[in-house]
Amino acid sequence: MTYRAPINDILLALNHGAGLQAALKAGHYGDFDAEMTAQVLEEAGRFATDVLAPLNRIGDQNGIKLKDNKVTTAPGWPGAYQRWIDAGWNAVSGPEAFGGQGLPLAVNAACTEIWSASNMAFGLCPLLTLSAIEALDAHGSEELKKIYLEKLVTGEWTGTMQLTEPQAGSDVGALRSRAERQADGTYRVFGTKIFITYGDHDMTDNIVHFVLARLPDAPAGTKGISLFLIPKFLVNADGSLGARNDIYASGVEHKLGMHASPTCTMTMGDAGGAIGYLIGEENRGMLCMFTMMNQARLGVGLEGVGIADRAYQQALAFAQERKQGRGIGSKTQGMDPIMVHPDVKRMLMQMRSLTAAARTICYATAVALDVAARSPDAETRTKAAARGALLTPIAKAFSTDIGNEVTSLGVQIHGGMGFIEETGAAQHYRDARITAIYEGTNGIQSIDLVTRKLAVAGGASVWALLDELNGIVARVEGSNDPAFGTTGAKLRDALGSLERSSKWLLEKMASAPNDALAGATPYLRLFGSALGGCMLANEALAAREREGDSARYVSVARFFAENIAVQAGALERTVMDSADAVMAADSALLG
Amino acid sequence: MTYRAPINDILLALNHGAGLQAALKAGHYGDFDAEMTAQVLEEAGRFATDVLAPLNRIGDQNGIKLKDNKVTTAPGWPGAYQRWIDAGWNAVSGPEAFGGQGLPLAVNAACTEIWSASNMAFGLCPLLTLSAIEALDAHGSEELKKIYLEKLVTGEWTGTMQLTEPQAGSDVGALRSRAERQADGTYRVFGTKIFITYGDHDMTDNIVHFVLARLPDAPAGTKGISLFLIPKFLVNADGSLGARNDIYASGVEHKLGMHASPTCTMTMGDAGGAIGYLIGEENRGMLCMFTMMNQARLGVGLEGVGIADRAYQQALAFAQERKQGRGIGSKTQGMDPIMVHPDVKRMLMQMRSLTAAARTICYATAVALDVAARSPDAETRTKAAARGALLTPIAKAFSTDIGNEVTSLGVQIHGGMGFIEETGAAQHYRDARITAIYEGTNGIQSIDLVTRKLAVAGGASVWALLDELNGIVARVEGSNDPAFGTTGAKLRDALGSLERSSKWLLEKMASAPNDALAGATPYLRLFGSALGGCMLANEALAAREREGDSARYVSVARFFAENIAVQAGALERTVMDSADAVMAADSALLG
Repeated sequence: MTYRAPINDILLALNHGAGLQAALKAGHYGDFDAEMTAQVLEEAGRFATDVLAPLNRIGDQNGIKLKDNKVTTAPGWPGAYQRWIDAGWNAVSGPEAFGGQGLPLAVNAACTEIWSASNMAFGLCPLLTLSAIEALDAHGSEELKKIYLEKLVTGEWTGTMQLTEPQAGSDVGALRSRAERQADGTYRVFGTKIFITYGDHDMTDNIVHFVLARLPDAPAGTKGISLFLIPKFLVNADGSLGARNDIYASGVEHKLGMHASPTCTMTMGDAGGAIGYLIGEENRGMLCMFTMMNQARLGVGLEGVGIADRAYQQALAFAQERKQGRGIGSKTQGMDPIMVHPDVKRMLMQMRSLTAAARTICYATAVALDVAARSPDAETRTKAAARGALLTPIAKAFSTDIGNEVTSLGVQIHGGMGFIEETGAAQHYRDARITAIYEGTNGIQSIDLVTRKLAVAGGASVWALLDELNGIVARVEGSNDPAFGTTGAKLRDALGSLERSSKWLLEKMASAPNDALAGATPYLRLFGSALGGCMLANEALAAREREGDSARYVSVARFFAENIAVQAGALERTVMDSADAVMAADSALLG
Repeated sequence: MTYRAPINDILLALNHGAGLQAALKAGHYGDFDAEMTAQVLEEAGRFATDVLAPLNRIGDQNGIKLKDNKVTTAPGWPGAYQRWIDAGWNAVSGPEAFGGQGLPLAVNAACTEIWSASNMAFGLCPLLTLSAIEALDAHGSEELKKIYLEKLVTGEWTGTMQLTEPQAGSDVGALRSRAERQADGTYRVFGTKIFITYGDHDMTDNIVHFVLARLPDAPAGTKGISLFLIPKFLVNADGSLGARNDIYASGVEHKLGMHASPTCTMTMGDAGGAIGYLIGEENRGMLCMFTMMNQARLGVGLEGVGIADRAYQQALAFAQERKQGRGIGSKTQGMDPIMVHPDVKRMLMQMRSLTAAARTICYATAVALDVAARSPDAETRTKAAARGALLTPIAKAFSTDIGNEVTSLGVQIHGGMGFIEETGAAQHYRDARITAIYEGTNGIQSIDLVTRKLAVAGGASVWALLDELNGIVARVEGSNDPAFGTTGAKLRDALGSLERSSKWLLEKMASAPNDALAGATPYLRLFGSALGGCMLANEALAAREREGDSARYVSVARFFAENIAVQAGALERTVMDSADAVMAADSALLG
């Protein structure tokens, strides 16, 4: 079945759960017109349904092919990419000075969810280009920007990010690709990169590679890494394409999912070295990487949201259609649709509420990053930057964890059919699996949350967030709406657990850092559960203030509070009590 | 990498966690010699490592082929199957009167884990044959037994179970295949079955199909279903093979995992009808099915344990070998193995402890089924049967749920390599996914637990079990061993949650059955977590009483109590508080 963007849910999450409306009112977005949001998303939804969704299964089945160092994408993909550029979708949040529309990241975040839901393997290509745009815009010379930036913004050329080498995965500092200075100010780059997404393809006539490498006299580790722009084809002074550069796709991976997205081994230097141009300063490549990390991680979180929503839509349709057994007290003739069974209802509500919570967390991260970049007020920018930094690892890890859970529930609802590839539920399950790994594994996100985000200024940004969340809980309780059930109590407990765990971790970071690290993953889950629960409750409160159809949002918020946020207490105990057992792993498991 | 059966862990779980030693001492196993257990398992481990494990990846990569209604298995598979028969592995628990060794189910359960771990797609074939043996032994005529039973017990022929039709999956009563009585006492069977595991293959020269069908005058639903034995080749009076019967593999499925195990569409009746022989009485086919359901479900639970252990072994090896980053305070030169990182330790401990708990739950189920069949004392048999019936849905669903979780952690520990098929971690993740679905989805197991197992005699078998488990907790607390950390307190809380949830569900079953059904899945998880936690603690206590290496078992039990069993409180609240939100699914999700 196809995918339809849930525009109403997205708008409620964006405007109310994530705070876009409040940020607009506060003037942080300048003259950006809020009316546009709905229009852009409606159009994005149409493009996703009409152009991208129909190619999702074709891409999975055909995969990509490598021959003579050239990657061919699946049938229909180059044509779809051309329509993508023509419709201007690549340029949504790109800088206006280089042909972009300059729309808020928050709007682009909703679009990214929509692209990922309709066709995650396709959507990954522009996501990578976006990172390239960010790096070049922030750190590139005016000359490089002039030649490359507009082409990347429009999508006429795509970008790649090349960090990983066989011995350097999570530990980027271990990379060995080398760059040699040339007399003309360019560099010659030599080495092999692995796991390079869209390292080669046939959808555009040039590809702009962003490659990390090490100069001969560079210090060891991350402080000796430089960033280079290496075009697939060199560009002549008049903008036309020149010679083929010495960077080639020499292998492609056979993967669990994302079959349509080429994952390449890239070889540089077989013919004298790839000609590269320095981005930023020598040995400051990691800094360039860090500036774009928030957006890239958020993008992957949105992949988790998108694939979860896709799986949910398919499972919901199946549950209404497939008939097996009879509900208790059913008065129909014959079998009922399986949605009558409470256990199926539970799975569907779980899918829906986890997806909705992750969506709002991601959108709220985007709003914070927007305000940090756009507000005229310096203090507001600083606070928003801290908020965005805090939320980013949660947006990435919580959303991709639930992406895996939700796509698994999608398979489960299909029963035996779910295990058959033809059904399509299994593809979502396969595709989702990488999101918890790439762009920093979810374990690394948890460590980032504890060691770099929580720890800033004695937890200041956590305490500020807790204040806001407690305010939401007070409003839920003040509503006296019985439809909320035990939502208020569950969320209050969850916030208590979050506060105590945060304090405990702050203390341990100083006294016993390994104990803090041992609790990082349950802490992130606790954080996401408490935060997501409050955000959904906030959305439900906003929906109640409008006309009409609010009951569904209250039910979703309630389900989340009573089934997901309620786990916070156990997670708190896990954070605080289990470091000894974790650190006993060597003696328990080895020898 | 290969697989090595964890014989020490298995023996501790079998003898102490699952109570085999106590059952032996009590004389329930007659003159069965306990010394044999270790020998059998050592031999099984060798066969698994030498013969089955090397074919696991080959099977996944080659899959099976269907041509002219004939299925060809992967290279090496027929030869391995011949070695399997020759070594006598098919006959471990088969009836002695028909060539079996008559060993306890508990011993065969450990073997089933070992076969599943080494090669789950291979092991599934004898698992199906075992169900066929059980049905034929319990309900077949002496004449049919004489012709077919020994061949099935030795494995010279394999068996299939044919229930599912396109419109009849979980709802078996909806099946439409029809059987017509013949003058000679045989039947002609017509119809189409789907999802038939090993419905055809090239590993034996005959296959014995067990097919559910409906007589023309049968009542509707499950009360009008009869069971037929339908051989692929008819058998002559002298035991030689006769004419090809009218039952053919007409299609095979393209699946997420288990590529080496053919999943066939079977067509009967294109040439006059398949000749079938009635098993048991007409219209009593479901009864025959029910008698073998416990063992079949336990077998699938053991697949979950096996695949989890396989994934764990692979991840543990990778974590010791792969170097990335440095541990806090590390004094080594360069990078450390990733196992130094607390987050990796946590994942490994989680894999190990979940697997160990599921293993013991499954073995304990097998011991109960053994005692129910073997004890000379009628009351003991009755109680053991109730225990076995209670544990079966937990053994099936908890073990396969954790099978999915553990294989996912296995992928995660491999990082980007985990998403690459070549690594092998992804295959375990794909293979595991079906276990939560077939042989009754895990949702159906939960419903069975609440409506048919808990509800018997006012929860009598649950209260009896709780008494035993509370005894274990008292012994943990009485040990005053600080290595147990908060294990005692966590398990005591978990048992409290289990008791209160059980009472609540019993009450709701009478007053509001949909509310009880809405809580079935979290209840089963709560049950498995509390039960598994106590069983691991019991194993740790037993290990402490022996010489030597007990600390590892205490650590594993502690990790489980502090990280898994601790979730019981939240699950209790979910069972009791969330029915309203679950039942709001229609209004929240539709329209």
